[in-house]
Amino acid sequence: MDIVKTFENVSKTSPLVHSITNYVTVNDCANILLAAKASPVMADEAEEVAQITAISQGLNINIGTLNKRTIESMHISAKTANENNIPITLDAVGAGASELRTDTARALAEKHKLTLIKGNISEIKALMGVSSETKGVDAAENDCLAGDDFSELAKECSRKTGAIIVITGQCDIVTDGSKTCKIFGGTPLMKSVTGTGCMLSAILCAFLASNKQNCFEAAVSAVCMMGLCGEKALSLMSENDANASFRNHLINSVYNFTAEDFKEARYEIN
Amino acid sequence: MDIVKTFENVSKTSPLVHSITNYVTVNDCANILLAAKASPVMADEAEEVAQITAISQGLNINIGTLNKRTIESMHISAKTANENNIPITLDAVGAGASELRTDTARALAEKHKLTLIKGNISEIKALMGVSSETKGVDAAENDCLAGDDFSELAKECSRKTGAIIVITGQCDIVTDGSKTCKIFGGTPLMKSVTGTGCMLSAILCAFLASNKQNCFEAAVSAVCMMGLCGEKALSLMSENDANASFRNHLINSVYNFTAEDFKEARYEIN
Amino acid sequence: MDIVKTFENVSKTSPLVHSITNYVTVNDCANILLAAKASPVMADEAEEVAQITAISQGLNINIGTLNKRTIESMHISAKTANENNIPITLDAVGAGASELRTDTARALAEKHKLTLIKGNISEIKALMGVSSETKGVDAAENDCLAGDDFSELAKECSRKTGAIIVITGQCDIVTDGSKTCKIFGGTPLMKSVTGTGCMLSAILCAFLASNKQNCFEAAVSAVCMMGLCGEKALSLMSENDANASFRNHLINSVYNFTAEDFKEARYEIN
Repeated sequence: MDIVKTFENVSKTSPLVHSITNYVTVNDCANILLAAKASPVMADEAEEVAQITAISQGLNINIGTLNKRTIESMHISAKTANENNIPITLDAVGAGASELRTDTARALAEKHKLTLIKGNISEIKALMGVSSETKGVDAAENDCLAGDDFSELAKECSRKTGAIIVITGQCDIVTDGSKTCKIFGGTPLMKSVTGTGCMLSAILCAFLASNKQNCFEAAVSAVCMMGLCGEKALSLMSENDANASFRNHLINSVYNFTAEDFKEARYEIN
Repeated sequence: MDIVKTFENVSKTSPLVHSITNYVTVNDCANILLAAKASPVMADEAEEVAQITAISQGLNINIGTLNKRTIESMHISAKTANENNIPITLDAVGAGASELRTDTARALAEKHKLTLIKGNISEIKALMGVSSETKGVDAAENDCLAGDDFSELAKECSRKTGAIIVITGQCDIVTDGSKTCKIFGGTPLMKSVTGTGCMLSAILCAFLASNKQNCFEAAVSAVCMMGLCGEKALSLMSENDANASFRNHLINSVYNFTAEDFKEARYEIN
Repeated sequence: MDIVKTFENVSKTSPLVHSITNYVTVNDCANILLAAKASPVMADEAEEVAQITAISQGLNINIGTLNKRTIESMHISAKTANENNIPITLDAVGAGASELRTDTARALAEKHKLTLIKGNISEIKALMGVSSETKGVDAAENDCLAGDDFSELAKECSRKTGAIIVITGQCDIVTDGSKTCKIFGGTPLMKSVTGTGCMLSAILCAFLASNKQNCFEAAVSAVCMMGLCGEKALSLMSENDANASFRNHLINSVYNFTAEDFKEARYEIN
């Protein structure tokens, strides 16, 4: 598996990523896409999204602050993406926290061919109808017990949806239903910055957009890079720094990330 | 009055704060909630807000970029919060600058039991129907003459609305209609960063959520902390730093704030 | 031409700038307006925008994440601005990328007297109906060939719309249809931060608001300042810094910019 090459393809092709995303973290998503040498465009009006998606190489849907107007746009764009063979990532932010989010995430997965779905364990459980708790947009503590293995659930979700599933947590999981990769690394500080998950989704979309024939590898590559950049960002923290600085270090680290840096990646594939 | 304990309760309980807020400063509000060890969730679609509020411990309403759709959601969430005994903070951003803002702030205060209303002096005057000037979302200069005492107006507003009133300015005022606290500190640089007021509201909501039996103390504690963090942030400024750095220092300082740091708090209660 | 005086007028008058802008870069726009000693207010609800515009000294319209609701508000505000002799800037973000954006930009230019229109070369071509490519919100590569001179197109656009035209690129162009100024400077890193163009529009609006009798000079001054601040920000970059740091340095540099700093400005007028 060549996770380095999938990374290099992003800067080589500089994909345009159309994001229909939440207004909480949208700026960081745009800047981290630029840091990865991709190009961001945000648009969520039903009347224009089909045209915007059609000129893009990736579609990144994030339901973080969804509303009825933007839900309609998500479906229009997803349809356009499918018609044009453009990869789609779905970040199921807050699935389980409200019926609207759960239903929207499920409807997107049912009506369209999604390339990748990302969520924390509470969100993926909600998608799958498995009983769970939720704490807003964060995974419920009971859902995150150390040592638990969510690989089977992830595989099942992948088989059901046909999408690559990424479950983020202490150990990140990427599966296409047959191959499964566990990725170690990152830092708990990532949970102290809003939008690190959204940023990962954006990055995932860029990697898929530049590697349409190797989506599983591309997803593993993106998750590895994000974790390593989190560790790099942590190493750059000085006294008096905290989550606000960490955010800047994280985006900077993506910008400065090189193929060499993948040597530190720690993952295992089954 | 134990402002230290109310502070410590926030990290102990890590309250989920549902914010219906403006898109200008929403990212900073989320990050400062995380810095205070609270947990943010943003949602403003009428169809889901009742459910989101119901799983939250605090509701933070901010009318900074209100629209008809989100105004409806504010009322739905406020109703739900009242039914579930969840504290509500209202940041009356720009009340007085347009009838829609003034009317919305008043309607929220009339139809629901708000726990706390925060505004600058121009906004609180607008709420009370006192003749005032306004400069958009900033207090009008004529409203801010040094030496003026807004305690009486604050008390009157508190008695009228039943809410704790926080008026921010050179000296911040917190009153529950009987007890009034003046808090000194902060730095003028806070006005050079957009959203320091919004961030304070978010923090206030988290403090109330974790201290439902001691809302006055919690509000004083939150205002003290924010002022001290502003001073800390100022002390961290180096050459070539300015408002952008200050924003980062401010959020970092909230993250790093400890019970010890309250020793520097300067306030008087009448 | 006295670009220093137009700059000084901004801090002297501290204009209130009403922005109807996109949610991607809105926070940076607010902070850079504060850095320039102007005062930001954001509002996009049709019911209130006329009142907000009427108390403002400048109206800054940016179609970056337009929707039908906000398009209506843009027209209401533009009408109010024209009636009150308040300068209007239009940032034609993504014109050419969708019909909705192209049509909206044109309709605003046709129905109202715009003071200034800013865009990259792809956007201005789209406005003028000149065949072009587009890459979302970035200029298409084929549109940016070094050595090309867009002065004539800019002049033509100015004569057609009656607005000052600002085309950003390797060399920035400002024209009022008769006088044309080319401004050199800046750094490619500005394209690695989302919203540097939006920030420039916001700054342009503040400069026009404070210099209604010298709009051309004010526009040149704003563009010069932004470029010089980009160079300053670049000089402040240390190891491990990248686009996230650059954003902070850029806003800080606007805050710290002085009349003296204009000595480094490099421009030529024809």
